Amino acid sequence: MRIPFEKMLAELERVLIKKGFEKERAQLCARLFTEASCDGVYSHGLNRFPRFIEYIEKGYVDIHAHPEKMEQFGALERWDGHLGPGNLNAHFCMGRAIDIARENGMGCVALQNTNHWMRPGAYGWQAADAGCIAMCWTNTQPNMPAWGSKERILGNNPLVIAVPRKEGHIVLDMAMSLYSYGKLESYRRKNEPLPYEGGFDEDGNLTRDAGAIEKSWRPLSIGYWKGSGLSLMLDLTAALLSNGQTTKQIGEHKDEYGLSQVFIAFDISRESQKQFGDRIVNQVIENLHAAAPVSKDGKIYYPGERTLLTRRENLKNGIPVDEHYWKEILGM
Amino acid sequence: MRIPFEKMLAELERVLIKKGFEKERAQLCARLFTEASCDGVYSHGLNRFPRFIEYIEKGYVDIHAHPEKMEQFGALERWDGHLGPGNLNAHFCMGRAIDIARENGMGCVALQNTNHWMRPGAYGWQAADAGCIAMCWTNTQPNMPAWGSKERILGNNPLVIAVPRKEGHIVLDMAMSLYSYGKLESYRRKNEPLPYEGGFDEDGNLTRDAGAIEKSWRPLSIGYWKGSGLSLMLDLTAALLSNGQTTKQIGEHKDEYGLSQVFIAFDISRESQKQFGDRIVNQVIENLHAAAPVSKDGKIYYPGERTLLTRRENLKNGIPVDEHYWKEILGM
Repeated sequence: MRIPFEKMLAELERVLIKKGFEKERAQLCARLFTEASCDGVYSHGLNRFPRFIEYIEKGYVDIHAHPEKMEQFGALERWDGHLGPGNLNAHFCMGRAIDIARENGMGCVALQNTNHWMRPGAYGWQAADAGCIAMCWTNTQPNMPAWGSKERILGNNPLVIAVPRKEGHIVLDMAMSLYSYGKLESYRRKNEPLPYEGGFDEDGNLTRDAGAIEKSWRPLSIGYWKGSGLSLMLDLTAALLSNGQTTKQIGEHKDEYGLSQVFIAFDISRESQKQFGDRIVNQVIENLHAAAPVSKDGKIYYPGERTLLTRRENLKNGIPVDEHYWKEILGM
Repeated sequence: MRIPFEKMLAELERVLIKKGFEKERAQLCARLFTEASCDGVYSHGLNRFPRFIEYIEKGYVDIHAHPEKMEQFGALERWDGHLGPGNLNAHFCMGRAIDIARENGMGCVALQNTNHWMRPGAYGWQAADAGCIAMCWTNTQPNMPAWGSKERILGNNPLVIAVPRKEGHIVLDMAMSLYSYGKLESYRRKNEPLPYEGGFDEDGNLTRDAGAIEKSWRPLSIGYWKGSGLSLMLDLTAALLSNGQTTKQIGEHKDEYGLSQVFIAFDISRESQKQFGDRIVNQVIENLHAAAPVSKDGKIYYPGERTLLTRRENLKNGIPVDEHYWKEILGM
């Protein structure tokens, strides 16, 4: 089942307004959810919307809260998200980092006390659309073991890096676990083994059985010890720069809220730099595309390339939806 | 064979002065090499020194070159390394990023046209010693295939993130390949299989045979497609921010020189923040140490913890050296 972009957008906006969102914020929030699905990130688009509404109803998300500036040190600002909608807070803070970058070459906004930002890559695309290089990351609840431990005490803490490019931005959007829980679920449902060992089963053996990993809560960090270390650093830096909560503290709540995030933008939109940038980036991408593939008719993609292909297809043919979620939303 | 820190330092300094270094620069350069070995990063300490001298003699490294500021946009500066010694250039630029951060909350120096910075973590420890959070990364020559390709067109582009802490800094120092070439070499020499599959053999099969990976030049990127994507982004951002060369361009030279690097520092040394920071970081580290280990008497380390243990041991008992390299240096 496919739903046109505008129809999905209107439907989500309708629900948000019904739940009490101001018109303008409902529009932006609905757009961020719709764009996630349109770009193929279904797990953090439409499919996640019912849980977002549930978190509003549980009181974790305050739909009227706006981020507030707490402190400013030159190009570095610290904001309090006041537990507002995570995607609106994140969109605002990346916008603010871009504004600072216009003045200072670069800008950083550290955000405390916010909520799940839904699709991480959204804020990378946003900055790249504004001609900026961007990096942003978030911490999460504990959902991944530290290397050497059986216990999930780290977050999978997604990291986004974006580079603007006229023909299509280069946007990396990656969590610190090899497979997300959404991906594990989809392999379990299809009853297919993971392409690579994705975690440990309850006996501590590396396994390609997605269901066994869901049960053990022991997904594998990328590069084993390396992703574990990187996750720890992203958590510490997000909490320290924002004066916010760490993954450990978030784990003391019953559900996931009160996250810490960092948004950094570098303005490279000056004309002279844009020309240099376009040339260099295109040269690297051409080199990547021309590299000898592993399989005869294999194709090598840059981060964000398939996103763009999916976006074009879904804008043309409608966004694939899981009927179950779509009906649930229609009934809201 | 173990050599006292001061003896190694004096010996390296002697050679550098003989090669024409000014006294003060010889001291710092020798100290950076000695500290790398003292901290257990032998591959980029003493063992690398003969190749560093070779690169000077080949004319790749200009021992008299100093970095020069090309452009400044607020908190973001662009410097030209003029192919000076990579570790001196990097140490200077992290220092400059720290100075900018003191004024602006954060600072970024993008460095073009520099040389191999030797031990990546050095600049993380440097910033943490100054009470700063830091991130820095470098590109390299092409030494890792892009995901889906047989051809090494990406660098292993080390990334460093550092967080200061009174009881010992947290410093992550990681390349984008699961095992460095130095590590592969040491497993091959010991004739031991790698703990995990570390790359592809010439037939394209994942293997734990270090020698086969050295032969194929196909080390595995961390998290398969993820480390490949992250490597690409680190290369692009380093080249774009510094207006420097990409891994592709570096690969057009016969040897590795003319690299691009990024140094970012966040000043969190204000008194109020330091107290918050110490409390939060210690809480996270205690939580990590208390997590249930996989093996009964296993211990979970934070990034940088073993570095500190090694440093203490080597300061006390002398730095282990490979006699072959030590004799070579004594004869220089």
